Amino acid sequence: MRRAPAFRPLGAIGERVGGLQIAVRMLRGEGVDVSHLVRGGSRVGIYFAETGASQRASTVIYDRAHSAISEIAPGSVCWDDVMGGATWFHWTGITPALGAGAAACVREAIDAARRAGARVSVDLNYRRKLWTEAAAQAVMRPLVEGADLIIANEEDLQAVLGMAVGGGDVKGGALESGAYERAARDTAAQLSVKRVAITLRESLSASDNGWSALLFDAEAGVCHRSQRYSVRVVDRIGAGDSFAAGLIYGLLQQWKGDMALAFAVGASALKHTIPGDFNRVSVTEVQQLVAGDGSGRVQR
Amino acid sequence: MRRAPAFRPLGAIGERVGGLQIAVRMLRGEGVDVSHLVRGGSRVGIYFAETGASQRASTVIYDRAHSAISEIAPGSVCWDDVMGGATWFHWTGITPALGAGAAACVREAIDAARRAGARVSVDLNYRRKLWTEAAAQAVMRPLVEGADLIIANEEDLQAVLGMAVGGGDVKGGALESGAYERAARDTAAQLSVKRVAITLRESLSASDNGWSALLFDAEAGVCHRSQRYSVRVVDRIGAGDSFAAGLIYGLLQQWKGDMALAFAVGASALKHTIPGDFNRVSVTEVQQLVAGDGSGRVQR
Amino acid sequence: MRRAPAFRPLGAIGERVGGLQIAVRMLRGEGVDVSHLVRGGSRVGIYFAETGASQRASTVIYDRAHSAISEIAPGSVCWDDVMGGATWFHWTGITPALGAGAAACVREAIDAARRAGARVSVDLNYRRKLWTEAAAQAVMRPLVEGADLIIANEEDLQAVLGMAVGGGDVKGGALESGAYERAARDTAAQLSVKRVAITLRESLSASDNGWSALLFDAEAGVCHRSQRYSVRVVDRIGAGDSFAAGLIYGLLQQWKGDMALAFAVGASALKHTIPGDFNRVSVTEVQQLVAGDGSGRVQR
Amino acid sequence: MRRAPAFRPLGAIGERVGGLQIAVRMLRGEGVDVSHLVRGGSRVGIYFAETGASQRASTVIYDRAHSAISEIAPGSVCWDDVMGGATWFHWTGITPALGAGAAACVREAIDAARRAGARVSVDLNYRRKLWTEAAAQAVMRPLVEGADLIIANEEDLQAVLGMAVGGGDVKGGALESGAYERAARDTAAQLSVKRVAITLRESLSASDNGWSALLFDAEAGVCHRSQRYSVRVVDRIGAGDSFAAGLIYGLLQQWKGDMALAFAVGASALKHTIPGDFNRVSVTEVQQLVAGDGSGRVQR
Amino acid sequence: MRRAPAFRPLGAIGERVGGLQIAVRMLRGEGVDVSHLVRGGSRVGIYFAETGASQRASTVIYDRAHSAISEIAPGSVCWDDVMGGATWFHWTGITPALGAGAAACVREAIDAARRAGARVSVDLNYRRKLWTEAAAQAVMRPLVEGADLIIANEEDLQAVLGMAVGGGDVKGGALESGAYERAARDTAAQLSVKRVAITLRESLSASDNGWSALLFDAEAGVCHRSQRYSVRVVDRIGAGDSFAAGLIYGLLQQWKGDMALAFAVGASALKHTIPGDFNRVSVTEVQQLVAGDGSGRVQR
Amino acid sequence: MRRAPAFRPLGAIGERVGGLQIAVRMLRGEGVDVSHLVRGGSRVGIYFAETGASQRASTVIYDRAHSAISEIAPGSVCWDDVMGGATWFHWTGITPALGAGAAACVREAIDAARRAGARVSVDLNYRRKLWTEAAAQAVMRPLVEGADLIIANEEDLQAVLGMAVGGGDVKGGALESGAYERAARDTAAQLSVKRVAITLRESLSASDNGWSALLFDAEAGVCHRSQRYSVRVVDRIGAGDSFAAGLIYGLLQQWKGDMALAFAVGASALKHTIPGDFNRVSVTEVQQLVAGDGSGRVQR
Repeated sequence: MRRAPAFRPLGAIGERVGGLQIAVRMLRGEGVDVSHLVRGGSRVGIYFAETGASQRASTVIYDRAHSAISEIAPGSVCWDDVMGGATWFHWTGITPALGAGAAACVREAIDAARRAGARVSVDLNYRRKLWTEAAAQAVMRPLVEGADLIIANEEDLQAVLGMAVGGGDVKGGALESGAYERAARDTAAQLSVKRVAITLRESLSASDNGWSALLFDAEAGVCHRSQRYSVRVVDRIGAGDSFAAGLIYGLLQQWKGDMALAFAVGASALKHTIPGDFNRVSVTEVQQLVAGDGSGRVQR
Repeated sequence: MRRAPAFRPLGAIGERVGGLQIAVRMLRGEGVDVSHLVRGGSRVGIYFAETGASQRASTVIYDRAHSAISEIAPGSVCWDDVMGGATWFHWTGITPALGAGAAACVREAIDAARRAGARVSVDLNYRRKLWTEAAAQAVMRPLVEGADLIIANEEDLQAVLGMAVGGGDVKGGALESGAYERAARDTAAQLSVKRVAITLRESLSASDNGWSALLFDAEAGVCHRSQRYSVRVVDRIGAGDSFAAGLIYGLLQQWKGDMALAFAVGASALKHTIPGDFNRVSVTEVQQLVAGDGSGRVQR
Repeated sequence: MRRAPAFRPLGAIGERVGGLQIAVRMLRGEGVDVSHLVRGGSRVGIYFAETGASQRASTVIYDRAHSAISEIAPGSVCWDDVMGGATWFHWTGITPALGAGAAACVREAIDAARRAGARVSVDLNYRRKLWTEAAAQAVMRPLVEGADLIIANEEDLQAVLGMAVGGGDVKGGALESGAYERAARDTAAQLSVKRVAITLRESLSASDNGWSALLFDAEAGVCHRSQRYSVRVVDRIGAGDSFAAGLIYGLLQQWKGDMALAFAVGASALKHTIPGDFNRVSVTEVQQLVAGDGSGRVQR
Repeated sequence: MRRAPAFRPLGAIGERVGGLQIAVRMLRGEGVDVSHLVRGGSRVGIYFAETGASQRASTVIYDRAHSAISEIAPGSVCWDDVMGGATWFHWTGITPALGAGAAACVREAIDAARRAGARVSVDLNYRRKLWTEAAAQAVMRPLVEGADLIIANEEDLQAVLGMAVGGGDVKGGALESGAYERAARDTAAQLSVKRVAITLRESLSASDNGWSALLFDAEAGVCHRSQRYSVRVVDRIGAGDSFAAGLIYGLLQQWKGDMALAFAVGASALKHTIPGDFNRVSVTEVQQLVAGDGSGRVQR
Repeated sequence: MRRAPAFRPLGAIGERVGGLQIAVRMLRGEGVDVSHLVRGGSRVGIYFAETGASQRASTVIYDRAHSAISEIAPGSVCWDDVMGGATWFHWTGITPALGAGAAACVREAIDAARRAGARVSVDLNYRRKLWTEAAAQAVMRPLVEGADLIIANEEDLQAVLGMAVGGGDVKGGALESGAYERAARDTAAQLSVKRVAITLRESLSASDNGWSALLFDAEAGVCHRSQRYSVRVVDRIGAGDSFAAGLIYGLLQQWKGDMALAFAVGASALKHTIPGDFNRVSVTEVQQLVAGDGSGRVQR
Repeated sequence: MRRAPAFRPLGAIGERVGGLQIAVRMLRGEGVDVSHLVRGGSRVGIYFAETGASQRASTVIYDRAHSAISEIAPGSVCWDDVMGGATWFHWTGITPALGAGAAACVREAIDAARRAGARVSVDLNYRRKLWTEAAAQAVMRPLVEGADLIIANEEDLQAVLGMAVGGGDVKGGALESGAYERAARDTAAQLSVKRVAITLRESLSASDNGWSALLFDAEAGVCHRSQRYSVRVVDRIGAGDSFAAGLIYGLLQQWKGDMALAFAVGASALKHTIPGDFNRVSVTEVQQLVAGDGSGRVQR
């Protein structure tokens, strides 16, 4: 597979500049294999986050014009190397929204993952500031088809898949349960997807959220509905990713659907209480929460 | 108009000490015209604020003995210069509470504002630590009479105007709506005032407040009642001033009464979520809140 | 009384190292008499605290292996000197949990307090990480018998005294009032104790707690039940100790039982809103809260 | 003059987004007239600064690809409006280094300044990361010709004007005085410039610098040499700009050359002791330093 | 002795407001007996300090108009109670500079100290912003006469005692040793003082000072000259007080003059390296420095 | 090889507690293979560091009683697994100072390293608070014999090897060069060591150090002497380890002795300017310094 000249594998650059930068070190510290990382573009993408409270929403300003990921082109990554030995590949709808090059890379990655026998999941993650619903639907549907797992919230379903969830009113916080199950079933059927998870956020305010989710298992024809947490929000950035990570972790552990879902919702509920975008909790802490102790008593 | 010798116009002192101090620079940065500022007194007034939580109230300790504003005397400011071209003059009940000199200055300022054709508004702002109800009533009533707008809360009405609001229990949080409208009507009638705005704070705790307001328009004979926000308080200092600023802004924009009131309540609701005493929100953010999105969803 | 060689009175060491360390200075600043303090062990015990929020509980990791208090032995402190002129001696169940030496020291201290005519109180403070319920019961019952005041929560009663409180569900937050009164009565009767105070924490989450208490006076045969506070938690470490301190203060002031209890609950409610483990409130502030103003209005 | 569509005058955007951003407010706070500011480009340029010490140099990483200034085009600013009433126009060599559009704008600005009767000064400010010496010389020489004042250091003279300063060794810290005067004379003669100022930094380490300057007045044929300060560096970013600001201030005050130079060197020496890139000193403080008190005694 | 009504002994106020404030607690933590403290005035005096570096001097802005100490009157303190059992009384020239009331209180205190048999020392501490040299000399000379110890620097000698030190140039840093000894001898003779200590600061810059002192013992007729430290300044506020404290400590320990002086200079040299105005070093640390180890090697 | 029951390999514990702790993650982020890490002891060793300045030395208080490393026993680590594929093994004299168990582990590790064909180096690192010179010599000499590289400073040579360096006065800062070369030669000869590096710190104060080193190559019979840096110290903790790391890096790169030494001294000179105990510089930055640019000019 050809390698685009603008993108250099990390090893080489690493040697030349005499070390890895702080972001890569943090990833490696968490146990992420960074040996396949490539570099390119004219700058590193950053974002500015302002944490909300009460009626004032958190705001995120992305400054990633001309960043590496937004300038990536097909062939930049040797995906068959990356996927060697992998059992799961997860991607999000933000990547193809960054342009045709990035979308083509996602296509390459999915195909390589399939060749390697890995399962593939996607978090639809619609971003209104990046593209229109029409563009999202045209690009995303072919990428999503046949996924092992789709993760979405109500807005994603509507914007990316054109699937209106009847009777819900996200902003007002009232969520009608049956409608979501129907949306999950329809999604699974239309796109030949094995599992569909829908996260249900009730935004009472920027400080107080209801948080739960459902998981529809198309093969078993069963829909699991999680416990609902009343969350006092410290920092909700990263909560969606924590849900995805928790759910994939549970499924990789061969847990049953309801147990994997409970783990994912518990893990992401805890993320809401942690500043920054890393979910600094252990498996044990999530399991204690899931097992019923959400009272927040001091542990000593 | 005579200029008291102890007070020097800012321009002169600015040139002499080689620069303006940080507080003046912050005001100027916000677009305030500081060219009419005068200096005097033996020190700058400061205050110490301790932000409360739950059952523990925020406390403010004023250390402004012998500060410039407390030693101001009639003639210190050339009000006709200051008011040249002005369309609105707003003052608060804290200033006359600082002494006879300050009260006389307020009188001068109101008269100059009238001469310049500016509208005049007042926030009654009763401060129990500064003067008695009897003293406040004696000084304030003549100053307030004929104002275009009075802003008050229940305690202000009672202490400054001697107007008991029947049936309310501010500390307990229960607020009886009709009684406030009657108080607003009576105030407008007695003092020949065009508009009376009453802010309604339900202090459930130092961390949780209900926040709304009403606006009585004496000419139209209409009383507008705003939406009520359940506010998770980050820092409520400056909320009252934000309400006044929002209301005056709306009226200057020629908005209808209910719209100006909604804007004022929304702006001050947002202030509760911002540390410090500046309301760092834009007109657009207030309007988004007023338009209905108080869900605090991340904006991205 | 013999002095164990490993423990040196503070005076001597103080002179030798040229000063007192920061922790001792803080205690002395609060008015604690540090002249009887002894030193020993190979290190100072510390702990790491992580403040929780919402579903994530605060966690405390004790690092006091081989600390002074865990290596104390009988005879290390000259208790008759310490108790000279004392009117009250308070200890907690954590100390005897640290080992036989510490338990023996508590025995010595109680006996010396009795000789000095001081009243004796105990906060049962069961710590599951330190010992088993069986061990706690064997060691604690003889120490507790005849106390002037026992302070406990539901878990303490069960673990330390083997007294199940019927019908309660601490973690879920539902607390049945009558059962607690019965437990207090039984405790007083079985252990010949004059007063029993039970703190009632409803852990809705790490961010929101209900907080109240009852005080049973065995001599009068009366059970006082305090007001219940809905507390927005800033830092709850030290709340239990603040309750004990408030109750002892009230009883030393000769206040009636209900007043002393109200003071203790108010003081500890306020502690929940203060970072760190010192309850930085004044007697006046507690009394204002008890007198009814829990509205959290700004005081100015 | 045509206005490029991508660049909008600040007023309009300000109204639309409901306020000015923080950077503009800071400038306005310092007394800068921001009414002529235009916006454009896809992002705001930022930079990352790491403050050095001893052998470790401070490093600055510019992240301004696609920023407003780097995408500016001729016609974006209505320079005749901007220069109305101006008496001095100062620009730096960084701007034309950003591209042909920016260089063309500098040309426009200089011409407009001349039309308005303003004096024109330039700080050569060569940036090796932005362009080659050949490119700099081709672009800069025509822009610089006929300036009222050129400010440069040794590296600038060589890179931008091709003028080698004999006998100097900047990095080693040894600076030969006569050679600099000759370079200033030659520069003035070749480019028909009225005054040439050369700053002389002796980089003993990132923590310790020698700092002085000379000013050649071509009309009088005199070369002033300033006092040399041994500076303990706190943050040297902004020192060069502080020198330029001080020198222009002095010349605008009609001070003699040696006095203006002394003021400029004193002001920039003080900047080295202040964190951040604003020189937060008053005219009086600079004058006290220049008058001889560099002893750093506490002022009280 | 009469007690001025505006000043209340601390005990009473302490009980009434339910606790001591933070400043008093810090003093008590350091072992200061605060039981004789009185309160009064309309506010607490504060000051703002800006730490200098290199050519930029530290600046201190005092905001103590109408503070307790500036409004104190004769009779406010019951000095015979305060001095009971005291062996040393130390005061500084700042107190009488605050006004006639404060000066009268110093007189009372000195007389009471004499009655109690305590030694009396004074740090002349001339403050140009508080009074003129003429006023200082008129007030201070009678107070200083007969002291056991006078501490001064060159400026103090000249301003307070009218004693020019020949040949010195404080700001330039050159200090002529013999002249200081002569000044010390003259001071001791003229004012019947037992010991005179002169601190010698060479202000090379705000970051680098030379620091030494001399002590003239009039009874023995000997003049001790200390070691000179080259100090890299972290925060020099409090250095003078640390010198006084160290010298008094040494004399109270009955050390010989040269040893007490060495201790005082070492203690205050260390103060220069500690942020804040407390000298957080132990006797042992000072003695190690004095014993010769000023190399700053890591101690482990 | 037997595994002591108290020590568990990290993998197992990691899975059980649901994650790795922060310290391990930081090591892994830097590229350290943590898969062979074992755990044990009753607590984690910590230390408290106070950064010195001028005459006040930095102080380090170790709190590692009963930490994992101090309770390690022979057999705790499977060294043959750890050394598989290793080319260099470095240890320091602190480890055997912690007790017989730790010393025995070092013996095991050295033997395993030899079996694996790795080179072995040691930093003598004498710690006076841990053991006597006699004990150090008895334990260290057999461990050190035959090493490929010994790193030491003057104090280490004397305390650990009984080798007095004639004519030096470390504390005073005067270092006699020839004596150090002789000491290096003698050390190499007596202990059959291939290379001996001696670091030369001149402690002018805690803020200013001279820093250089020499490297004696016994096979070539050559002694290299490095450049000397005048270092303005920010934080010198970790400087010694940075020297060792730099030297080993250079020798592993097959650089000649003088080049490896220059790199080691440059790397550790830079460490003095970085807070914390990680040397956050790249190979390139060290090489730039070594190549001659120590002027600390801003890089832009």
